[in-house]
Amino acid sequence: MSREERPASWVKRLGKLYSPVVADVLDKLGFRQQVMRANIRPLYPTAKSAGFALTAQTSPAREIKPAAPYAGELAAVDALRKNDILVVAACDWAFWGELLSTAAKYSGSTGVVIDGFTRDSQAIMKMKFPVFCRGIHPADSLGRMDVTAHNVPIDCGGVLVYPGDLVLADYDGVVVVPYAQAEETLRLAEEKVSGENLVRKALASGMTTAEAFKKYGIL
Amino acid sequence: MSREERPASWVKRLGKLYSPVVADVLDKLGFRQQVMRANIRPLYPTAKSAGFALTAQTSPAREIKPAAPYAGELAAVDALRKNDILVVAACDWAFWGELLSTAAKYSGSTGVVIDGFTRDSQAIMKMKFPVFCRGIHPADSLGRMDVTAHNVPIDCGGVLVYPGDLVLADYDGVVVVPYAQAEETLRLAEEKVSGENLVRKALASGMTTAEAFKKYGIL
Amino acid sequence: MSREERPASWVKRLGKLYSPVVADVLDKLGFRQQVMRANIRPLYPTAKSAGFALTAQTSPAREIKPAAPYAGELAAVDALRKNDILVVAACDWAFWGELLSTAAKYSGSTGVVIDGFTRDSQAIMKMKFPVFCRGIHPADSLGRMDVTAHNVPIDCGGVLVYPGDLVLADYDGVVVVPYAQAEETLRLAEEKVSGENLVRKALASGMTTAEAFKKYGIL
Amino acid sequence: MSREERPASWVKRLGKLYSPVVADVLDKLGFRQQVMRANIRPLYPTAKSAGFALTAQTSPAREIKPAAPYAGELAAVDALRKNDILVVAACDWAFWGELLSTAAKYSGSTGVVIDGFTRDSQAIMKMKFPVFCRGIHPADSLGRMDVTAHNVPIDCGGVLVYPGDLVLADYDGVVVVPYAQAEETLRLAEEKVSGENLVRKALASGMTTAEAFKKYGIL
Amino acid sequence: MSREERPASWVKRLGKLYSPVVADVLDKLGFRQQVMRANIRPLYPTAKSAGFALTAQTSPAREIKPAAPYAGELAAVDALRKNDILVVAACDWAFWGELLSTAAKYSGSTGVVIDGFTRDSQAIMKMKFPVFCRGIHPADSLGRMDVTAHNVPIDCGGVLVYPGDLVLADYDGVVVVPYAQAEETLRLAEEKVSGENLVRKALASGMTTAEAFKKYGIL
Amino acid sequence: MSREERPASWVKRLGKLYSPVVADVLDKLGFRQQVMRANIRPLYPTAKSAGFALTAQTSPAREIKPAAPYAGELAAVDALRKNDILVVAACDWAFWGELLSTAAKYSGSTGVVIDGFTRDSQAIMKMKFPVFCRGIHPADSLGRMDVTAHNVPIDCGGVLVYPGDLVLADYDGVVVVPYAQAEETLRLAEEKVSGENLVRKALASGMTTAEAFKKYGIL
Repeated sequence: MSREERPASWVKRLGKLYSPVVADVLDKLGFRQQVMRANIRPLYPTAKSAGFALTAQTSPAREIKPAAPYAGELAAVDALRKNDILVVAACDWAFWGELLSTAAKYSGSTGVVIDGFTRDSQAIMKMKFPVFCRGIHPADSLGRMDVTAHNVPIDCGGVLVYPGDLVLADYDGVVVVPYAQAEETLRLAEEKVSGENLVRKALASGMTTAEAFKKYGIL
Repeated sequence: MSREERPASWVKRLGKLYSPVVADVLDKLGFRQQVMRANIRPLYPTAKSAGFALTAQTSPAREIKPAAPYAGELAAVDALRKNDILVVAACDWAFWGELLSTAAKYSGSTGVVIDGFTRDSQAIMKMKFPVFCRGIHPADSLGRMDVTAHNVPIDCGGVLVYPGDLVLADYDGVVVVPYAQAEETLRLAEEKVSGENLVRKALASGMTTAEAFKKYGIL
Repeated sequence: MSREERPASWVKRLGKLYSPVVADVLDKLGFRQQVMRANIRPLYPTAKSAGFALTAQTSPAREIKPAAPYAGELAAVDALRKNDILVVAACDWAFWGELLSTAAKYSGSTGVVIDGFTRDSQAIMKMKFPVFCRGIHPADSLGRMDVTAHNVPIDCGGVLVYPGDLVLADYDGVVVVPYAQAEETLRLAEEKVSGENLVRKALASGMTTAEAFKKYGIL
Repeated sequence: MSREERPASWVKRLGKLYSPVVADVLDKLGFRQQVMRANIRPLYPTAKSAGFALTAQTSPAREIKPAAPYAGELAAVDALRKNDILVVAACDWAFWGELLSTAAKYSGSTGVVIDGFTRDSQAIMKMKFPVFCRGIHPADSLGRMDVTAHNVPIDCGGVLVYPGDLVLADYDGVVVVPYAQAEETLRLAEEKVSGENLVRKALASGMTTAEAFKKYGIL
Repeated sequence: MSREERPASWVKRLGKLYSPVVADVLDKLGFRQQVMRANIRPLYPTAKSAGFALTAQTSPAREIKPAAPYAGELAAVDALRKNDILVVAACDWAFWGELLSTAAKYSGSTGVVIDGFTRDSQAIMKMKFPVFCRGIHPADSLGRMDVTAHNVPIDCGGVLVYPGDLVLADYDGVVVVPYAQAEETLRLAEEKVSGENLVRKALASGMTTAEAFKKYGIL
Repeated sequence: MSREERPASWVKRLGKLYSPVVADVLDKLGFRQQVMRANIRPLYPTAKSAGFALTAQTSPAREIKPAAPYAGELAAVDALRKNDILVVAACDWAFWGELLSTAAKYSGSTGVVIDGFTRDSQAIMKMKFPVFCRGIHPADSLGRMDVTAHNVPIDCGGVLVYPGDLVLADYDGVVVVPYAQAEETLRLAEEKVSGENLVRKALASGMTTAEAFKKYGIL
């Protein structure tokens, strides 16, 4: 599962695309389960993030006062490198906050996707660090949830994410590009964007959607 | 159920009202199940739409690669006329997007209410086409859901909607005015708006709510 | 349970704090169930409210046309005094609206937290009255829900709230400070805010989160 | 709200009826919100209970080790008299168990309806004490939930229950008869049972349901 | 969509199979969305039904006292013929009961699958009429829900059901066989049953599951 | 995390206890998050299982036709030894069935707890293999979910389960005993059972619950 090559150009190209276009291309390639559930939303409207997944597996906590507080969580955050996007499995409390955002930003991480909650939300919005999550909650994770491992395959928002997969998160949602399909997905998605421009013009000039779909094969 | 007369004046008058006032009047007339569930929300704060319902019935898809892709969906959209608001039954994927918004806008449709999801949300917000939906999701409907019929009675957001009913959607929610009650509802709602102005002044001057309700019978 | 002393200074100090910091301090004091569920959200991003809880117990309505319409609801609202925050138990319809906001504001109430819905949301946002709720719904409470008592202990958002408890509601959520813990909680929270400033600087300069937590004991 | 007269004959007659018939009669009398949600189920198939409601209001607990453990819960149970049915508001943990069943049975209580959970379920089934609940859970209520009052109006399963209302719980569900409507409801329900016998025979002999409904007005 | 040929032999053969085996075969044929959600359960453990789908489309009711009570519901039930299984779209109230079961049984219908509720459950169990539903609820459908059409394509339990499709409902769940795939599905399912007997024996003799799957290709 | 000593006597003693008693003891020892959610239920009323946890981590599937079908699932099942109870993280499809039950039984496993679904339920009931799960569903896991690892810490039903923890599952629910607390928990639970016998007698003789709790400190 080690995917050592991490072309920065992939992250750049993915960041210029849109999650629906990428999702459509993956559908065509037979990968139909790559879009996270709709309840994972950006913290602010312009939040957008593309990167290589650094995954974190979570669980409820066993002890209210653990021997090594935050141990798994800090290990995951301190492992972040440039162009990583942190992807966190399901949790019911605030996994994230302003201080972790500060640390992640310093490491060059491009954002975080949490199947759970954040806090310090307005401070994070001010520093423009892209957070995608199920909601906002003031209660800390300590004694409520733990990170049991990082860089293992996880379920986030109903999608299997392997460490090193490419992830695009924008206002429409979060889509996961399997590492082995990255090159082909990027190319096809860039082509589809061009096609949509033609359809848009045709529809704005009064062509019916049925004619447009017949002519361009795109919707 | 054909309701051929479609007074444009109704759409205009309804568009100047507010969903809570219309809901109150329908309550008084004995129609207490006309407000959609609160999880159907506007895509942007100023979205507002009034129109005659063109309904679309939905179902999960049977085949991933259907023989006639999008057939039911395109037929519904291409049937839209001036002052129609498209009302779509429950679906778990992105029924709507930028290109369909472009086509609907050209037809003179005033908006769309979906008991489901849209995508291309920021492009739609830019063109100011009023979309009301349960959320945003990047995955296309193709091979996931179908439109099995349009202009049949449907359940949208927990409300029975007949083709041709009047629908008002604004920041507070979505309310359905039965066609036969339209004239009376509009008149009573316009009256109620005036009454509320008096109460507001009284409360802002220190009258208790109990006194105000006793005096004006409005809350 | 009568908590007659209501220092205005507490409300002022609490209003300068943040819900996560207050939640952390209560965790440390052993009060780990003081944060409401994440689905209670501010009506607008700058909404913030601190005050003494005036509680309202709710139930579904028995009769569509009650003998004394809104009786319990109006009694609760008319009981509001300066620095009260109204806290309302679970309900599925619009408990709140513009006219009640007008009355509450006049009384000196600092806001309302509802484990339910409001309406007239844009008018309320315009008057900058802080409302925290599960959502927005146009249907009135009349004949749908009742207030059966006020100033009794209630469950709001999963938290037990006694009349007179201190409540802080901001963009991150809603936290309830037991009356007897108010003084200590305020003091410890004010201290924690200072500590976080140091950690933020350290992390922004490249210290790992593990080192920072080891050094400052704060995250 | 004191309803001192408690005719034992009402309990007897109600216990011979069926919840759907009683629900139909209440519908006809204009009381359409008297049936609890379908997730409140009998602990065993033959559980059936009729009685006068003794209500208990619940809330989450504030303290893990309360000063007076179980105080509200024990007060409610010890208040049970002959022909009472205990009706408990929403709670997420095991409110009930074998020992409380033993005490309730001794008091002459006819059963318990909980918008929550029980434990010791097989022991309770063995002693044939009728429990209706949302499910079974081994975790005790201590430090998780409290009873804040008894014999106040409560919401149980979405129905407003006043102390002294008549309650019928059987395999089909739980229906609440307002005290003031008890006599009339019992009479009309007894009549409806006779009518249904005729329809059943007609349908078993091949009459269509449309004809049968036209002829008997019952379904 | 008229599928006039209805071989009784199909119903007989399907009734001897098991829903998991049929689901596996449909998976292999590329029909992966044919199993209803797990919350549709048999009313009693031995309930089993196979038949041709007669579908009923539902919606919330508009009027509490409709002009033609039960009109759509009765029309659907009276249309039932021998070997039909009634399949009903989503509804929140008791669509079904003892009297309708009596009528359906007389018509030769083999059972009913409801994405909703039934009542009179113990009487139905006594007459051994197979009902599959989301639960049991005493409240009648009158004034709460309507049948807007029958024998149209519907969504039941998350599956698209066309009139005339073959349906198998047993203790494991409900699976829908598209009419055009019926013959092939029956044949392949009958073959799979034989294969499973071999695997069962091997595993009971200590073969590992990995070896067994390698050897027989079945699990 | 290797906990090599696995005293068979622990399994025997735990199997004679009841989940509520064990949960109470763990509460007292400060382990208050050891009971799984109430939606994990036994497949049949007499199902009871005690054993050492062999855990399986799950995720949604990426590919409909995986290169190595069932690989993770079979590896987990083939790893089962005498006195193991298989504990499986959240999944939405049928993880389990008759053939796997046959293999598990042969290995000496005492049962399986799944935060998901099983199928072949009646065959499993016949062979009396104790399965605890969220429900029954005919659709196979193949191409829908994967096991990504076994014998790692997992979240099952809201509880953190380490490999080797002791698990007790009975009609009241599922409770997880941390390995390090096993000896003490067993001893205290056995003592509590004796105490409850005294209270039961006292209550059956008419002592109030308040007196009984005061005298025995048990409820």
